[in-house]
Amino acid sequence: MKPFVFDALQYCNWSRDIFEEMRAGGVDAVHVTVAYHEEFRELVSNLEAWNELFRQNADLIRRATSAGDVVAAQADGRTAILFGLQTPQPIADDLGLIEILHQLGLRFMQITYNNQSLLGAGHTEPEDSGLTQFGRKAIAEMNRVGMAIDLSHAGRRTAREAIDASARPVAITHANPLWWHDSTRNIPDETLQALVARGGILGFSLYPHHLRDGSACTLGQFCDMVAECADRYGVEHLGIGSDLCQGQPDSVVQWMREGRWTRADPDAPPARFPPQPVWFRSNRDFPGIAIALARKGFANSEVEAIMGGNWMRFIAEGFDPA
Amino acid sequence: MKPFVFDALQYCNWSRDIFEEMRAGGVDAVHVTVAYHEEFRELVSNLEAWNELFRQNADLIRRATSAGDVVAAQADGRTAILFGLQTPQPIADDLGLIEILHQLGLRFMQITYNNQSLLGAGHTEPEDSGLTQFGRKAIAEMNRVGMAIDLSHAGRRTAREAIDASARPVAITHANPLWWHDSTRNIPDETLQALVARGGILGFSLYPHHLRDGSACTLGQFCDMVAECADRYGVEHLGIGSDLCQGQPDSVVQWMREGRWTRADPDAPPARFPPQPVWFRSNRDFPGIAIALARKGFANSEVEAIMGGNWMRFIAEGFDPA
Repeated sequence: MKPFVFDALQYCNWSRDIFEEMRAGGVDAVHVTVAYHEEFRELVSNLEAWNELFRQNADLIRRATSAGDVVAAQADGRTAILFGLQTPQPIADDLGLIEILHQLGLRFMQITYNNQSLLGAGHTEPEDSGLTQFGRKAIAEMNRVGMAIDLSHAGRRTAREAIDASARPVAITHANPLWWHDSTRNIPDETLQALVARGGILGFSLYPHHLRDGSACTLGQFCDMVAECADRYGVEHLGIGSDLCQGQPDSVVQWMREGRWTRADPDAPPARFPPQPVWFRSNRDFPGIAIALARKGFANSEVEAIMGGNWMRFIAEGFDPA
Repeated sequence: MKPFVFDALQYCNWSRDIFEEMRAGGVDAVHVTVAYHEEFRELVSNLEAWNELFRQNADLIRRATSAGDVVAAQADGRTAILFGLQTPQPIADDLGLIEILHQLGLRFMQITYNNQSLLGAGHTEPEDSGLTQFGRKAIAEMNRVGMAIDLSHAGRRTAREAIDASARPVAITHANPLWWHDSTRNIPDETLQALVARGGILGFSLYPHHLRDGSACTLGQFCDMVAECADRYGVEHLGIGSDLCQGQPDSVVQWMREGRWTRADPDAPPARFPPQPVWFRSNRDFPGIAIALARKGFANSEVEAIMGGNWMRFIAEGFDPA
């Protein structure tokens, strides 16, 4: 079987051009964010917009809810699009909405974004009191219906408790290790050790704020980090989750950060998207990463696992009802 | 293959007892109403409640969205539950919600209830101006995604225009011919002729207001009517749509009629459910109808077609995307 290229997080300003770049880059599957701070009905409107994108670009992309759908997409030369949430806001405090979201095709959900959610604390919250009562029920329900728990933005205690609470392996779809680059969004070694000890998976972020030297980070530096992670965590627990936000206006980074819970500080410079590193500006650049990993010394089978094989195993095991 | 028993409309006060009666009556599939005048988010709450019913009664019923699901349900001794709407209120004026509802498993939608809807006029509206602009778009969208158009409560002009506008056969899931019993809810011969000329199907109602002599209607009278319909319309266009509302409090008939658009006339007696005829009080009574149709002179193959085979053909052809 042909190896798979799987990107576990993108939130681009979707267009036919970007879908064509997915094909040009040989990308078989992308987990796309369908909502941040939206309420349920707003999320549904976003899903309606995706249905329209699928209709208008049926030659390039298809809706996918399973590993089998990704296999089918690869077979007919299209990119599989899997849906996920970056915050649990659309479910509010309604446990039953998790199954409804699964029935609507959603397969990933972050239990927190940056702030406190009803499930747990995000990484910017000054006090992290861990999983809430509802958070524990929601994790059990996500396990039951087959929705991946994503801890990319979780606080440390919340992340650790979620890893322990989940009966199925969990994901950090888009982040890097804290020991490589000191960002509040990057993940401490002990969390990553706990994640992989329970079968979880880390998607390496290519968002400049998560990279050593930011936008100036080199592909060589990135591959060195991947190699160190393979030594520490095992190559079977590593993937890509680029966090590509191609073509988005800066208002979107404000929406991500500020949502509706605050207003921008009028004295601070407005939030902006940083420039991407020169070696990863679009979906066309995935082959270059695979080549660089091979040059770094990874075996072909290891490169294939990191570029998508590990995510395919994760979703094949994770998306069916328990 | 074993013949199928299919009821094309029920809105009972759902309970394990009723699901056990479905099994006792050999009912393979039931189209259940999941909303009347509810807004979209309220409909979703109803679907959450159904998910809970499926979990708690997984030995008796299963969620179904296709003829294949009904076949699977019959094979493992359960009753398939198919979802539908009696009003288009949950989609409001949002065309994209039709596909979302299909993705949530809904497979039938009445384009009107008793009153004017955004799609067309119901049977009680004094003026029926036919399909609206949105109604035509909605019918095309229902055709595209594979959702059955149900005209049971439609006004005469609206029904006729919908039959003509639909590219796929349409349904009247629960009504009887006007020539048999003069009720505003029953259907003129010319509408039924147009329905069947385009491959549509009529589900015979067992709701007393739609029966000759009401609650006193005999099974013999009912079978006489079915025989006359077979002569006029062809046996392949006939099925059952009992409109069974077992166990519902009278407040539900008020909700159906008054919704939120009016208030009950304080001088009129409150709306009540009429008593069911003695030969159809629950799902246990389906075998008696089949026996009576055979005694009336229908061949076994004709009885099987009326009791469920015709509905199975209709959904097998109607529920896939065009």
